Amino acid sequence: MTQQTTAIDLIYQPVREKLAQVDNRLRDLTTQGHPSIVGLLGHVAERAGKRLRPTLALLASGFHDGGGELPVTMAAAVELLHVAALVHDDTVDNATVRRGAATVSSLWGDGMAVLVGDYLFAAAAILVCDTENLRVMRRFAQTVKELSTGELMERLGAYKWDHSMEDYKERIHNKTASLFRAAAESGAIVSGASEETVGALDSYGYNLGMAFQIVDDILDYGGTEEEVGKPVGHDLLEGTLTLPGMLLIERFPKDNPIVNMFQGRDVEDNRLRALEMARNSGVIDDAYDIAREFTDAAVNDIRDLPDIPERRSLLELASYVLERRS
Amino acid sequence: MTQQTTAIDLIYQPVREKLAQVDNRLRDLTTQGHPSIVGLLGHVAERAGKRLRPTLALLASGFHDGGGELPVTMAAAVELLHVAALVHDDTVDNATVRRGAATVSSLWGDGMAVLVGDYLFAAAAILVCDTENLRVMRRFAQTVKELSTGELMERLGAYKWDHSMEDYKERIHNKTASLFRAAAESGAIVSGASEETVGALDSYGYNLGMAFQIVDDILDYGGTEEEVGKPVGHDLLEGTLTLPGMLLIERFPKDNPIVNMFQGRDVEDNRLRALEMARNSGVIDDAYDIAREFTDAAVNDIRDLPDIPERRSLLELASYVLERRS
Repeated sequence: MTQQTTAIDLIYQPVREKLAQVDNRLRDLTTQGHPSIVGLLGHVAERAGKRLRPTLALLASGFHDGGGELPVTMAAAVELLHVAALVHDDTVDNATVRRGAATVSSLWGDGMAVLVGDYLFAAAAILVCDTENLRVMRRFAQTVKELSTGELMERLGAYKWDHSMEDYKERIHNKTASLFRAAAESGAIVSGASEETVGALDSYGYNLGMAFQIVDDILDYGGTEEEVGKPVGHDLLEGTLTLPGMLLIERFPKDNPIVNMFQGRDVEDNRLRALEMARNSGVIDDAYDIAREFTDAAVNDIRDLPDIPERRSLLELASYVLERRS
Repeated sequence: MTQQTTAIDLIYQPVREKLAQVDNRLRDLTTQGHPSIVGLLGHVAERAGKRLRPTLALLASGFHDGGGELPVTMAAAVELLHVAALVHDDTVDNATVRRGAATVSSLWGDGMAVLVGDYLFAAAAILVCDTENLRVMRRFAQTVKELSTGELMERLGAYKWDHSMEDYKERIHNKTASLFRAAAESGAIVSGASEETVGALDSYGYNLGMAFQIVDDILDYGGTEEEVGKPVGHDLLEGTLTLPGMLLIERFPKDNPIVNMFQGRDVEDNRLRALEMARNSGVIDDAYDIAREFTDAAVNDIRDLPDIPERRSLLELASYVLERRS
């Protein structure tokens, strides 16, 4: 067992049972659709990821004893929304591999992937309706809007090399941190936690999500396909400029390989050179420093919450997000 | 002014002012997004269709004087959901023209269309949240699931020629009647109408939607591109078997041009032959008879509702759906 597996096992500990209930809920959902589409849904459901978002929702619900079944319902909705967004993102990005398996779009075509994603969005929304909580229902709809806004910003900004740090933060807030935030906040809300606790967990979720995406962007520069579970250097191929690349352009503005490749010059050579330069200069460390600012803020957000196992898992989760290699 | 324009003007009459408010709401929404995506949303919003679904929601809200702003909010949500579904359907179907203009997918690619559709789904969901009515929120989520189920059924059944009438009805219920039903039911609910009235309008919406889709399927066999606003004979090209084709296969099982083309034999010749055979045999009339059964049922559904202008518009709408040429 690697050190990373141990860390994530410790994080799951306080919510292990409820996480199993989430898995059951998701399995039920995929078998309850129209007979003709059950096979499609099964393929998507089988490829469970690390389930960080439902874990976050469940941990956030642990600071109050109310809520009954609702945290499990909310956690299942959060994971389903995440899977729906992944199915659409893979279609948009022409990705062929996700979580070590072929994507829906590569197996059945973009058209089917669009519809399967829509179906999963709706199934997630129905789960949220089961909470009968207007506030989390509104947060859910808002999150779907933010996720698509983030992806639209990424796509509309493709092959541009003048992204400001502010633009970048807004983009990753929308495309990633919004769902982490929604998971933590909604988990806390349905458990009946105080406004103070809800606010602390909302902010924790935002900061954790920001760090998560920055590390994701770093791993695309540094890891191997085996570690990351999807091809590396993919962002640059799609014209997506992320933090390491932004820092690289800032530090080496002259004859920059990313600027060159985005201008269409020696694309493959310049891409490989960019990845190598990023690894050999200090930009990866600098990007990690910025990610660490967010995990530090996340830790600070929950400093006044009671010292229960859930809080210790959230602290561990902040470290894990920074240290993960996939 | 053609006879059809007159008919539809009469239908709009009782809700003309509120329909203008719906248009304003939709215009506001498209200008309130992130600056980079406002242009995209504007293109979608500019191409207003006949707005049958919001009209239906508004008419259904006229049988009770409660609800205040809610029927307008609900009608705007219904139209936005319809537009979102169209954007995705055009992507799935590779359609290039819709409402007489280029589709989002043909202008900016499938990836952008997926994301713009997601954004519009979310914007519609946020509007539904504004009603703060759990029942219509659940109906909305259910409708999104039904719409995608209908499209998935259509796609998974492509190039098959053994669809049963039951399959066909289930498919068009999901892909079309579900939203008509949701529009009518939700309009009635947010107005505070009695359960009896809600039930009558729910059933009316279902029957109207079924007739609407059957006529849509007929027009794809019979009309011209100019009349219909999109290319005709498109369904067969996509391998979609609809009512006229089913009747044609039933009546002429031997050497049937649709079976031939779905088997890949002389595709274009057989397609044109199928369209011609449908027009020259009685199957179009037979298909209209089935559509008329649904509009008759719709008329019957509202027989006991008070004889107010809204009810007269709903009766007119049932005739219009049957007689429309586009």
